Amino acid sequence: MALIKLAVLFLAASVCLCSKHKSEKVPKLVNSQYGSLWPLPQSAQISVTAFQLSRSSFQIVHAPKSSAGSRCYLLGEAFRRYFEYTFGYSKRLNKDRKQSGAGAQVSELQVLITSSEPQCDGFPSVSSDESYQLTVDQPTAVLTAPEVWGALRGLETFSQLVYKDEYGTLHINKSEIKDFPRFNHRGILLDSSRHFLPLKVILANLDAMAMNKYNVFHWHIVDDQSFPYQSSLFPELSKEGSYHPYTHVYSPADVKMVIEYARIRGIRVISEFDTPGHTQSWGLGQKGLLTPCYSGEKPSGTFGPVNPILNSTYNFMTQFFKEVSSVFPDAYIHLGGDEVDFSCWKSNPDIQKFMEQQGFGTDYSKLESYYIQRILDIVTGTKKGYMIWQEVFDNGVKLKPDTVVEVWMGNALEEELHNVTSAGYTTILSAPWYLDYISYGQDWQKYYKVEPLSFKGTDAQKKLVIGGEACLWGEFVDATNLTPRLWPRASAVAERLWSHKDVRDTDDAYSRLSQHRCRMVQRGIPAEPLFVGHCDYEYRGL
Amino acid sequence: MALIKLAVLFLAASVCLCSKHKSEKVPKLVNSQYGSLWPLPQSAQISVTAFQLSRSSFQIVHAPKSSAGSRCYLLGEAFRRYFEYTFGYSKRLNKDRKQSGAGAQVSELQVLITSSEPQCDGFPSVSSDESYQLTVDQPTAVLTAPEVWGALRGLETFSQLVYKDEYGTLHINKSEIKDFPRFNHRGILLDSSRHFLPLKVILANLDAMAMNKYNVFHWHIVDDQSFPYQSSLFPELSKEGSYHPYTHVYSPADVKMVIEYARIRGIRVISEFDTPGHTQSWGLGQKGLLTPCYSGEKPSGTFGPVNPILNSTYNFMTQFFKEVSSVFPDAYIHLGGDEVDFSCWKSNPDIQKFMEQQGFGTDYSKLESYYIQRILDIVTGTKKGYMIWQEVFDNGVKLKPDTVVEVWMGNALEEELHNVTSAGYTTILSAPWYLDYISYGQDWQKYYKVEPLSFKGTDAQKKLVIGGEACLWGEFVDATNLTPRLWPRASAVAERLWSHKDVRDTDDAYSRLSQHRCRMVQRGIPAEPLFVGHCDYEYRGL
Repeated sequence: MALIKLAVLFLAASVCLCSKHKSEKVPKLVNSQYGSLWPLPQSAQISVTAFQLSRSSFQIVHAPKSSAGSRCYLLGEAFRRYFEYTFGYSKRLNKDRKQSGAGAQVSELQVLITSSEPQCDGFPSVSSDESYQLTVDQPTAVLTAPEVWGALRGLETFSQLVYKDEYGTLHINKSEIKDFPRFNHRGILLDSSRHFLPLKVILANLDAMAMNKYNVFHWHIVDDQSFPYQSSLFPELSKEGSYHPYTHVYSPADVKMVIEYARIRGIRVISEFDTPGHTQSWGLGQKGLLTPCYSGEKPSGTFGPVNPILNSTYNFMTQFFKEVSSVFPDAYIHLGGDEVDFSCWKSNPDIQKFMEQQGFGTDYSKLESYYIQRILDIVTGTKKGYMIWQEVFDNGVKLKPDTVVEVWMGNALEEELHNVTSAGYTTILSAPWYLDYISYGQDWQKYYKVEPLSFKGTDAQKKLVIGGEACLWGEFVDATNLTPRLWPRASAVAERLWSHKDVRDTDDAYSRLSQHRCRMVQRGIPAEPLFVGHCDYEYRGL
Repeated sequence: MALIKLAVLFLAASVCLCSKHKSEKVPKLVNSQYGSLWPLPQSAQISVTAFQLSRSSFQIVHAPKSSAGSRCYLLGEAFRRYFEYTFGYSKRLNKDRKQSGAGAQVSELQVLITSSEPQCDGFPSVSSDESYQLTVDQPTAVLTAPEVWGALRGLETFSQLVYKDEYGTLHINKSEIKDFPRFNHRGILLDSSRHFLPLKVILANLDAMAMNKYNVFHWHIVDDQSFPYQSSLFPELSKEGSYHPYTHVYSPADVKMVIEYARIRGIRVISEFDTPGHTQSWGLGQKGLLTPCYSGEKPSGTFGPVNPILNSTYNFMTQFFKEVSSVFPDAYIHLGGDEVDFSCWKSNPDIQKFMEQQGFGTDYSKLESYYIQRILDIVTGTKKGYMIWQEVFDNGVKLKPDTVVEVWMGNALEEELHNVTSAGYTTILSAPWYLDYISYGQDWQKYYKVEPLSFKGTDAQKKLVIGGEACLWGEFVDATNLTPRLWPRASAVAERLWSHKDVRDTDDAYSRLSQHRCRMVQRGIPAEPLFVGHCDYEYRGL
């Protein structure tokens, strides 16, 4: 009923879409045949036959033949979470009252893991199988997935199929879903250096990521402005480099919690320790690490990028990355490598001398490459793969074949994708999805309309594009505004990265996404509105 | 200490302000001689002599000669509120332990109201006296104000003078403040129609308004999209016109609570019931009120603005505004009058006939003026003054001398201000402060730099500009994101409207405003960050 009224008002509003504002194209509020599903599965057949669900009797269980059983902590937690999402946290009222006139019921969701290695205790990776099949019928719905990662995605889909009628009864339609992601790397970048992000904020956003089938948390954990990562080997780094050594740091326990919270939601945590630029805060706790800048013949007292000519630098980095590679279990570390400013290096006589010795002439990008090359070798020694920002590739640094190049520059984007993939490197795309750039209106549509594979290239090249990331850099966001600024704008990217490339109907998307954002709100995520309207349950926080 | 470290990092960051972003001018973080005062008082002498404050002994009391005493509920509540803001909500520890080595203390703030009518039970108005004087000395600080309204502003200032040293001890410096607002009308417009705003959100924003010395809440309560105002005389209006008749309405008790909560913070509540346009939601609960639009010779089933040719319209409006004028105690009602779309009127044969009878030709702005004129006469009958959007003036409608014209159109702004004031009308400015138009970066500076009196005109004309409003229209905000989007951007407008016109140093403003926003955060308002940095106490909500 509420939905119908909303539709009427939208229609009415289109008579006079003036308002004291820039005029805004009103999306058509269609009634999507796919309800509130987001991101849209690869294949979904939803019949008109509806079954009921009863809070008191419904259960999510391991299928008898599942290779994952009651010892699978990851699935046990997921069953509990999706039961709560579906039925809410309210007390069971009238538990024993018989349902009168109840129709056919779905009383059970069986989860069947088919692989002999269900991955209950594993970490997700770029090659994890996230596919699943979901058959909703009465009295039993069946969710089949090779690994737990697909089961997590399927549980989210199941919960999205459930809806309430106006009497509060829960229903689900007979359905057949076959689903898998279009891209294997679907990430969110959060930046905990420009502003510290309390643990609570990070965890809530991991929840929201799972609701949108994201599978990578790219943690840009340190940068110029602060160093909140508490290192066991080098405690001075956060003691001196964080905004505050007690209240604005991530302890080893905090980091562990983030990783485990992400893991059981099927999300990888890729930490980024960006060097040699973006390292001002490192210098506060690690004397001698940064390049002293000169003003004429004297040190000016300020510092530039990491000093690339000292053995002590590489000794430090070797130890530091050894620690990082054991703290973060993911197979990849992001090493940054972007935006190195050469002016300080140029001012320093020792650096000048080194340039001469190495025969670099005055080409400081050769010095940058020299540094990066040594860092890559160090990280290779820890058995990790690495991701880097596109400049490292652009500068011709020698990369391992399994390197992931992150393309973030908007100009000449398609050319860059062409170049990276024709050199045979795996790549991910973040250029079109810098969500820190806000603007008035429905910018989600802009993010939604991106086609990652529109560049010129062979099929083999296109296969090298393994996904993308929505980046919310931290200059203007902290605990007060990060979550509503990220959602549901990042949801638009989520569908682009998960669903079939032909899923591009913005009217249909608007209908589903409006409902999806209200669902996030009801689950406690303050996702901002797409446009005028309301949710049955508005956000209860502030 | 934390502040010093922050400054170092800012400096450091300026070496390489690249980041993967549009480059952003870094404001200089000066150490303002005015600490965290916001908005800046008209005159403030702050000495270097610092006194301590003790949680266990400090009290805010009525001065013996004050015309307001312990029966003044408004001040009693304010004393409690500002005590809590100043000392926090924590339990008193070591209550009886003697302070060792304590220096001179301020143990009391005496509040002296000098007018024989202190206004404890009154409502603030456009002519309320908000001036105050604050003398901070030991052992007693004295806040003197003619009326309680000035005392409220002075209490806020007192609380802003208190600061913590690094051992947690509270200090306040010997000071002499003389203060009054530059403009009498300093408003925030919130829109509860495009999205419903839960009561909690409105109340929190009234708190934030008081922290910024705002004194008008312009409540754009209904519009096309929904009608959440629950009318006692016409309950169908919200029953049919709201998003939901129980969960998305303001009951009479809700409205009373908003008004009282605002009153005791010295804030007027000016309700806006915008007609004849922006009324789609009215039509759902009041059949026959809106103009039936025609498609050719037949009604199309859609409706346009209020039907201006029917007696029933004016009968309804007479009763409705009689109710509104008694529900909202403020001396002014905002009657809207903006953006009337003529296409529906043009399509309707009855309207065409009426136009002919009245000799309006094809000039539909004459019909609009005819309607508005009758509405103004109706409201005049309720003994209220009215505010209107600028179109009503522009169309030559005859206005009462005490009418307030709100100028919202950005084009030809100075010309409009010239015209309205040379016609002798009071005006307020909102055009430069449409905060719903967001953009990347530090847009607070843009709002801050506005000079409301830069138009050409005599001194007499300039005196007619009584203030301005920051408007946060509701298309893209609801409970999830309204508060951080409004604050501290609206704080920039607050200082422009309160402080002396020569207070324009953006570096000094940045220093004070950064601290002011952290203070808002600590008081529970999720005010977003201005730029990189941190607060000692980050926001604890989500």
